[in-house]
Amino acid sequence: MIAVLKPNTTKQQRDNLITWLEGQKVSVHVSEGHDYTVLGLVGDTSKIDIELIESLDIVESVKRVTESFKQCNRKFHPDDTVIDVGGVKIGGGNFCIIAGPCSVESRDQITEIAKGVKESGATLLRGGAFKPRTSPYDFQGLKADGIELLLEAKKITGMPIVTEIMNANHLPLFENVDIIQVGARNMQNFELLKELGKTGKTILLKRGLANTLKELLMSAEYIMSEGNTNIILCERGIRTFETYTRNTLDLSAVPMLHELTHLPVIVDPSHATGAARLVKPMALAAAGAGADGLMIEVHNDPIHALCDGAQSITPAQFKEIAEKVNRIREVMGQ
Amino acid sequence: MIAVLKPNTTKQQRDNLITWLEGQKVSVHVSEGHDYTVLGLVGDTSKIDIELIESLDIVESVKRVTESFKQCNRKFHPDDTVIDVGGVKIGGGNFCIIAGPCSVESRDQITEIAKGVKESGATLLRGGAFKPRTSPYDFQGLKADGIELLLEAKKITGMPIVTEIMNANHLPLFENVDIIQVGARNMQNFELLKELGKTGKTILLKRGLANTLKELLMSAEYIMSEGNTNIILCERGIRTFETYTRNTLDLSAVPMLHELTHLPVIVDPSHATGAARLVKPMALAAAGAGADGLMIEVHNDPIHALCDGAQSITPAQFKEIAEKVNRIREVMGQ
Amino acid sequence: MIAVLKPNTTKQQRDNLITWLEGQKVSVHVSEGHDYTVLGLVGDTSKIDIELIESLDIVESVKRVTESFKQCNRKFHPDDTVIDVGGVKIGGGNFCIIAGPCSVESRDQITEIAKGVKESGATLLRGGAFKPRTSPYDFQGLKADGIELLLEAKKITGMPIVTEIMNANHLPLFENVDIIQVGARNMQNFELLKELGKTGKTILLKRGLANTLKELLMSAEYIMSEGNTNIILCERGIRTFETYTRNTLDLSAVPMLHELTHLPVIVDPSHATGAARLVKPMALAAAGAGADGLMIEVHNDPIHALCDGAQSITPAQFKEIAEKVNRIREVMGQ
Amino acid sequence: MIAVLKPNTTKQQRDNLITWLEGQKVSVHVSEGHDYTVLGLVGDTSKIDIELIESLDIVESVKRVTESFKQCNRKFHPDDTVIDVGGVKIGGGNFCIIAGPCSVESRDQITEIAKGVKESGATLLRGGAFKPRTSPYDFQGLKADGIELLLEAKKITGMPIVTEIMNANHLPLFENVDIIQVGARNMQNFELLKELGKTGKTILLKRGLANTLKELLMSAEYIMSEGNTNIILCERGIRTFETYTRNTLDLSAVPMLHELTHLPVIVDPSHATGAARLVKPMALAAAGAGADGLMIEVHNDPIHALCDGAQSITPAQFKEIAEKVNRIREVMGQ
Repeated sequence: MIAVLKPNTTKQQRDNLITWLEGQKVSVHVSEGHDYTVLGLVGDTSKIDIELIESLDIVESVKRVTESFKQCNRKFHPDDTVIDVGGVKIGGGNFCIIAGPCSVESRDQITEIAKGVKESGATLLRGGAFKPRTSPYDFQGLKADGIELLLEAKKITGMPIVTEIMNANHLPLFENVDIIQVGARNMQNFELLKELGKTGKTILLKRGLANTLKELLMSAEYIMSEGNTNIILCERGIRTFETYTRNTLDLSAVPMLHELTHLPVIVDPSHATGAARLVKPMALAAAGAGADGLMIEVHNDPIHALCDGAQSITPAQFKEIAEKVNRIREVMGQ
Repeated sequence: MIAVLKPNTTKQQRDNLITWLEGQKVSVHVSEGHDYTVLGLVGDTSKIDIELIESLDIVESVKRVTESFKQCNRKFHPDDTVIDVGGVKIGGGNFCIIAGPCSVESRDQITEIAKGVKESGATLLRGGAFKPRTSPYDFQGLKADGIELLLEAKKITGMPIVTEIMNANHLPLFENVDIIQVGARNMQNFELLKELGKTGKTILLKRGLANTLKELLMSAEYIMSEGNTNIILCERGIRTFETYTRNTLDLSAVPMLHELTHLPVIVDPSHATGAARLVKPMALAAAGAGADGLMIEVHNDPIHALCDGAQSITPAQFKEIAEKVNRIREVMGQ
Repeated sequence: MIAVLKPNTTKQQRDNLITWLEGQKVSVHVSEGHDYTVLGLVGDTSKIDIELIESLDIVESVKRVTESFKQCNRKFHPDDTVIDVGGVKIGGGNFCIIAGPCSVESRDQITEIAKGVKESGATLLRGGAFKPRTSPYDFQGLKADGIELLLEAKKITGMPIVTEIMNANHLPLFENVDIIQVGARNMQNFELLKELGKTGKTILLKRGLANTLKELLMSAEYIMSEGNTNIILCERGIRTFETYTRNTLDLSAVPMLHELTHLPVIVDPSHATGAARLVKPMALAAAGAGADGLMIEVHNDPIHALCDGAQSITPAQFKEIAEKVNRIREVMGQ
Repeated sequence: MIAVLKPNTTKQQRDNLITWLEGQKVSVHVSEGHDYTVLGLVGDTSKIDIELIESLDIVESVKRVTESFKQCNRKFHPDDTVIDVGGVKIGGGNFCIIAGPCSVESRDQITEIAKGVKESGATLLRGGAFKPRTSPYDFQGLKADGIELLLEAKKITGMPIVTEIMNANHLPLFENVDIIQVGARNMQNFELLKELGKTGKTILLKRGLANTLKELLMSAEYIMSEGNTNIILCERGIRTFETYTRNTLDLSAVPMLHELTHLPVIVDPSHATGAARLVKPMALAAAGAGADGLMIEVHNDPIHALCDGAQSITPAQFKEIAEKVNRIREVMGQ
């Protein structure tokens, strides 16, 4: 950790700070420049509260030189993590396509979509059972029944399933779920992350709406620090001032995360854009950016059929996307 | 709810949508303009998924005319909510000052600060026992022991106490806590909100870092929908592009929330700015904006004494702030 | 235009507003719902100040049903605009690659890079002569001399050139420049846009750092309203909270703009990311998103050679990008 | 300037960078830590391109220790700047209230409002003649005629006037204008700033919608670097995700700017909130935050009278605000 002191710091102030820091069991190297003094802190700086140091009047800035994320850091684990979920490999050059409806609505609905997307190239089935909604008065999902229906669709199609958790107390319901999703609003629900870290489940961790990549990695680190290293990161759009799209898909997150971490990184173009007609171009773009997979909403419910187009795409559109994505991946591999 | 259809919608598409909407048990009034058709939906529209309707290709925009927050809405409850916490009244013209350290560190620390702030005008004592930290390797608070120490300080000074909860399973530890705080990162942890709604405790709900006022009110609504109406809203700074301050304190939230809701609204200038020297001007500004109270970090720990200035202010500075705030409130009341 | 009135609006207030609106030469259709009244305004509503109406206490919301951008609107001009710049076609399925250094530094530098990028697949040459800098003390470009050197490189290579303007009074210097760039900070310099609208030059209009797509289109409309329809839009990254990348490239802008406007849309991955190693994945992603072209910084200056990697890429890296982009475009075309 | 090199930098890479830096005429001090090397650059670093250094693969981060704004920096000019505008003092403990309509509409309108606000406590008159509008089809102001009408109102009331400039070529029209305003959208129109720097006029520089305080100060520096030191800074709200208010007034900008610069800082609550009913609380809050003045929209036009409330307030409301603001300033001064 490096702390730059302000030009007008007195020797007494500097020495007081150094004494305090040494009391925190780190050793301090002082380098004096013309206008500034740099303190280099060596030792276990993880206990030092960087915000406290930064808030001192004599401190210009503080910087951790070693990143605060360790276990998910590519520097310490140069090889890609490859996760095996019911026989489907994710990461390390393996491309996964997760598809399914926004919410599980009925046995027929989930089974029919599951068959459709499997045929068209999907390798995993998604479907919401517990739904985080801004309003307490909105539909909150079929809950335990939704998970039961997903498990039935898994049995019929053989596809591993992905569904979201909102409360660690629900974990027993997720016993046969293959991938447990943590939604954007719970990305910094640290208590939930720690509980998931104690399971051996694969966790799909979505980036929060206004969170940085570093915060996403620190949340992955919460899970890993409890012993669970099976984590898939998911870029699903961030909040910006743009209103034509629901959120703004940050595709530069893909190569940037690949540089910072060994964990697989997938992209959800459906939630990011909120518009079916933007799913195809953004899915192809995600492939071009080097994503390890896609998570796409596919529907067969009546309002879509009636009204021709909504946030979900049809199985036929999904098939075309899956084919083109695979061909773009071929171009990139050469 | 009003849905505006796009100019090129066919009669068939329009009729399909109306049929579907009527199937959702709402009646539909059609008004045709030159370029557009407006559908007015009447009845219980709370079950209608506004995002689904918006995502339809034929729909230009959808707007709820009746706000989705009900119980916290001033329209339906014109009088200010006044909460009594251990004899201290909050809201409805009563001004509260919550003060104390960022974290509870030791018996001596919390007791000494508690005495100091009480003498200087504070009416409630704050102190962090469970600390949400971006990194799993950072200090997470004294937890249960921290709450014990707060309760001792309460016994000595008679001040009601405020401290943060991160996990509904910890609720038994909060039995004697007067106000339970929900931090910014948990503002949309809906499962936690619902559990707190089942208690009779006063909840201090902080606005999330990138959340809108409407989302804050919807989160209050989650608590109220379970039966608990003792809620204090807290503006504590939002994330913006500015870097000189840690966050940006949105003081227009105060009069805007007063217009929208009957719940009390307080302001936390310490976390918003991250700098002790900005606490005084922003506390006075909050008073000018009409806040119902303040939450201020006050310290007595060595690093501050050593280094003269940090995110917390001293008891002496706190005293001056409390006095000026009261005099500004007098000016406003006249 | 549609105005929704608040539920508690009195008949007198409503009639006053209608009278005022009719005085503005629009006719008003009233539709009354249970809780709300909708006013449909018909006629030339372009003179109505939407912000003024919105700010009235009795108005819930106002919405223009017909978009305020007209000449760049795809609804009124369904076919793609194709611009011919010195024999190079842009838009309508023609893909252009603009390459060159950030700043023109010397005759040798610009000539050498120009030859290199032409050989590797670039169709247009870029180079900064007038440089907008946040600080008045930073290098502001070679100005008129820079343009001279670009024109020499154009003569030698035959490539049309692109360079930025900051002041309409400099227009005489741009007489032989093929494409005049308007930078992000000047996107809403309406006086400059109007002057460029009076020329017949092709204008490359970059999106502002925190501007919406609608604002970008309104700025294009400023140019078009003066008679110049040769406009290329450029997505170059927006300001977000992320700090690992300089800006956040918003690739969903590409298909969204294609839907809204007939103007060509290109992408600048170099400025968006600020890191050479991210240029390739984001260039391929832009191709996948359906961009009409790319604008890429390519260098040959010593600090890059010395230090191995910076915001610009080398001619060799550029060549690989150009080849893969072309192959992705083939996949998409099928 | 300090550059922190990445842990894996080779000695050869480091030496290459040092050689290049020394070629830029700065001397380099090397301090080696355990994991990192810090280069301290001494000498005239203003010519060094900080973004170029930052973009090098071997560089972790770069930081200017001396701020890049010089002339507006309080470090070098500790005393408050006091500007005298036609006998009205601004800054250094003098509080100014600028009031008037959004746009100049007619002789009667501007004269009547001018008289009203003068009587109620305003010291300067504002009114828009050139109006920056997002759409080229919206009303762009009375232009030269508007300035004439302002000058007449100035003659009648004796109040100095403030109005916005959009194009340096219009400067001759502003000869008798007392304060020239630069709007938010032109905050980084560097060519305009430089031209204004060559005049002796007082410039009211508004913060851009998504600009940082540092960028605001750099824009002030552009004006000062040409010789004009009569600058008033104005906080007028920044773009955030909140939609209930038009923009978000950043009042922490007031004390923060006072710390960074000696220039006066005023606040515009009218544009920031876009709602008349929020002007009073935000004006009082601005006074509490220590602003050097306010800029408030006051109207007398028919739509406001008709509809009771809009973005502008009435002269009577203005009078109450002015009185309370003065009493809050008394509290603060004691």
